[in-house]
Amino acid sequence: MVELHFGVPMAGALLCTLNIRHDSSLVAVLLRHSGTKVIFADHQFLQIAEGACEILSNKGDKVPILVLIPEPLTQSVSRKKRSEEMMEYEDVVAMGKSDFEVIRPTDECDAISVNYTSGTTSSPKGVVYSHRGAYLNSLAAVLLNEMHSSPTYLWTNPMFHCNGWCLLWGVTAIGGTNICLRNVTAKAIFDNISQHKVTHMGGAPTILNMIINAPESEQKPLPGKVSFITGAAPPPAHVIFKMEELGFSMFHSYGLTETYGPGTICTWKPEWDSLPREEQAKMKARQGVNHLGLEEIQVKDPVTMRTLPADGVTMGEVVFRGNTVMNGYLKNPEATKEAFKGGWFWSGDLGVKHPDGYIELKDRSKDIIISGGENISSIEVESTLFTHPCVLEAAVVARPDEYWGETACAFVKLKDGSKASAEELISYCRDRLPHYMAPRSIVFEDLPKTSTGKVQKFVLRTKAKALVSLSKKGRSKL
Amino acid sequence: MVELHFGVPMAGALLCTLNIRHDSSLVAVLLRHSGTKVIFADHQFLQIAEGACEILSNKGDKVPILVLIPEPLTQSVSRKKRSEEMMEYEDVVAMGKSDFEVIRPTDECDAISVNYTSGTTSSPKGVVYSHRGAYLNSLAAVLLNEMHSSPTYLWTNPMFHCNGWCLLWGVTAIGGTNICLRNVTAKAIFDNISQHKVTHMGGAPTILNMIINAPESEQKPLPGKVSFITGAAPPPAHVIFKMEELGFSMFHSYGLTETYGPGTICTWKPEWDSLPREEQAKMKARQGVNHLGLEEIQVKDPVTMRTLPADGVTMGEVVFRGNTVMNGYLKNPEATKEAFKGGWFWSGDLGVKHPDGYIELKDRSKDIIISGGENISSIEVESTLFTHPCVLEAAVVARPDEYWGETACAFVKLKDGSKASAEELISYCRDRLPHYMAPRSIVFEDLPKTSTGKVQKFVLRTKAKALVSLSKKGRSKL
Repeated sequence: MVELHFGVPMAGALLCTLNIRHDSSLVAVLLRHSGTKVIFADHQFLQIAEGACEILSNKGDKVPILVLIPEPLTQSVSRKKRSEEMMEYEDVVAMGKSDFEVIRPTDECDAISVNYTSGTTSSPKGVVYSHRGAYLNSLAAVLLNEMHSSPTYLWTNPMFHCNGWCLLWGVTAIGGTNICLRNVTAKAIFDNISQHKVTHMGGAPTILNMIINAPESEQKPLPGKVSFITGAAPPPAHVIFKMEELGFSMFHSYGLTETYGPGTICTWKPEWDSLPREEQAKMKARQGVNHLGLEEIQVKDPVTMRTLPADGVTMGEVVFRGNTVMNGYLKNPEATKEAFKGGWFWSGDLGVKHPDGYIELKDRSKDIIISGGENISSIEVESTLFTHPCVLEAAVVARPDEYWGETACAFVKLKDGSKASAEELISYCRDRLPHYMAPRSIVFEDLPKTSTGKVQKFVLRTKAKALVSLSKKGRSKL
Repeated sequence: MVELHFGVPMAGALLCTLNIRHDSSLVAVLLRHSGTKVIFADHQFLQIAEGACEILSNKGDKVPILVLIPEPLTQSVSRKKRSEEMMEYEDVVAMGKSDFEVIRPTDECDAISVNYTSGTTSSPKGVVYSHRGAYLNSLAAVLLNEMHSSPTYLWTNPMFHCNGWCLLWGVTAIGGTNICLRNVTAKAIFDNISQHKVTHMGGAPTILNMIINAPESEQKPLPGKVSFITGAAPPPAHVIFKMEELGFSMFHSYGLTETYGPGTICTWKPEWDSLPREEQAKMKARQGVNHLGLEEIQVKDPVTMRTLPADGVTMGEVVFRGNTVMNGYLKNPEATKEAFKGGWFWSGDLGVKHPDGYIELKDRSKDIIISGGENISSIEVESTLFTHPCVLEAAVVARPDEYWGETACAFVKLKDGSKASAEELISYCRDRLPHYMAPRSIVFEDLPKTSTGKVQKFVLRTKAKALVSLSKKGRSKL
């Protein structure tokens, strides 16, 4: 992955990294949609790649050349199992000429990569990045991560997501070292931080949970300051506290595949130093200000498209503009046009802008719950649930309700060995939130997630809908 | 200066900062050449600005509007002395409207500023910077200086030079603090570092000399690590050692007005950690690799324009290419064409490229001394002189010679209270350099410098020429 992020663009070709959790049929769809000519498959995923090629072949579609990246130690064994014609990565590299001249893009806005969105919506879209955008986002990512020269980066965020937030290019540009993990586990994280003196890392909140809930036997003291950028949902205060106790410096950022990964950072302000710890955690959970590669981020009324007042209260849709916003969706001019109404990229995220210019997300526009005409921010309900000592993970979605229109329905995973009843959690929320905002139903289960650690709320919404049809007979009093 | 670096471009106008050491007649030439419409003059330089306006007026040229920046404490006094019509800065600012909409450039390559070169050549040229270049160089300057968010920058490099190496924009972009000095003295430097906890600063080697030769009574211990970027001539090893003993982290960079200031940085490599100290100093004195805003830097044969081998030996002219190279010289298409032969900017500096890609300057092309057919690098002779304990400053130029064509002539300033004869210094060099490279004449005097601290070698060359006509009668045996 690291090498191909340089070799492929230098050969004048486009990168299209696929999620390692996709199955053959989805891979076949994406290979066809992207028009992929060569597929490089790690030996772990060879079966999936072969399956996808078979599907394409059966349907009479063009099948890409398959190049195997064999397991280093058992190269010959794995090779014997494979057909004679299949090429291996090192053989392809050996065919290269040392005097090969880099093929530069004819226009800096030419595409460098296609990134299929991680699937929080049902139909994946191919987000097109340009050389210009990738270059600027790489510099911005280095600045956003506050990297000095020669950082050591531990990869706990997937490289296939947003070209690794453009850090595959950024870390290399400033002479850094990439530490790669085949499997991300708490033990591997602590071992590698300690062994390689890691300075920077990042990942979704699931990685934070993995770290803070690691058994003591797997934890190791950090060799120095380790900066950790997290994105997606704002981390609950107790998670931030625990990470900082372990020695991590926590930074919260926000972005989408369409913005080349993180587009904002919650830059710490010296005047927050004197705030109480709980207030500091609240400040840290903001999405913050746009990074230096972006032109502008605003909160706008999705109907009038007018910029809303930066009062910390008026909710609108977060919009982006600048060089580090995608070119558009591959072969989908309609979705592209829809995403860029009025010259801005509409994120689908609802939030407010504070008077100091910091953005704070309140919800995905489709995740907002409207109960009795009142808006309920699912994030606010989740944040409250997170403060309960037994709750490990929580996701709140709308549950259709004949009387209220919708009510909040919480899906909760408790910590190992913890016990709490639905009634207990609901009354806990009622004590801390306006009554209408507290969930009326709680479901205990493992949360369905995308490969990048985001909770798949559309799955939960379907489940919540199913719940209501059961309760239609007699409305639950909960 | 700081405010105007934002206000002027946001008003859709161009910046043209003038050297504070220019006199009225030169200022008049530059005002006319640049077509300046408004001149903002600090009260210290009001007389020069008024003199320049008078010259323009006497010649029937258009006179720009003069805006006074009065001394804060004696505002009313200074005002009374001036004509009733002259505007004052704060009054101009007060005329602004809070709903003023920023005037953005129609094309990102539109000019943002004109910087007249500092005068190491006799006729100043107006170097045009673009919005695109200034933006990219600002980001690159932050990265090159290894600045984290909220740095504190002490201004000992002039803001009028290359728009302060674009750090006026860069430091602000990452939420930093600018500490400005009216007069740069050793005492002011130490006092301000201590008071404001300065993290970064930069300047020409003269600033280094000022710091390391400061009387102990003016020195103060540094409150933390202070990163210092120096450019121009490579600092002698003992200067680097002394600065590091005082607690500064030294970085050597290189660039020209035409490259928006520093375009390279001698990034430290971990494998140099184990070298002897003297070797480390040699490595630190290299000009290094291009920063992340530049596309490429090469060493080329000025005749064939071919890239020379990166062998650390083959000397050629250093050439630049990329976004942070000027648009061209204002109203001077011929000089622009000449500077951009073959699509590269020709720096006029001679150097080598080492196998690791690091550039090392050997000389300005016009400063090279050709003696008996052998090239003498004036920098090498100067470096040798710098190692002599009595030498404070040294500059070596060609002195015409009937027999050898040219010989090396050294202009030397000794340290206060130090004594060394010409003979002593010459034999010191002969012990350490090939015989033909040692200077044959030494002149003791204060070195003439540009306002940015560069030695004006053209002045010294004229003096060296005058020397030869005196000695024509009987060739000096020295």
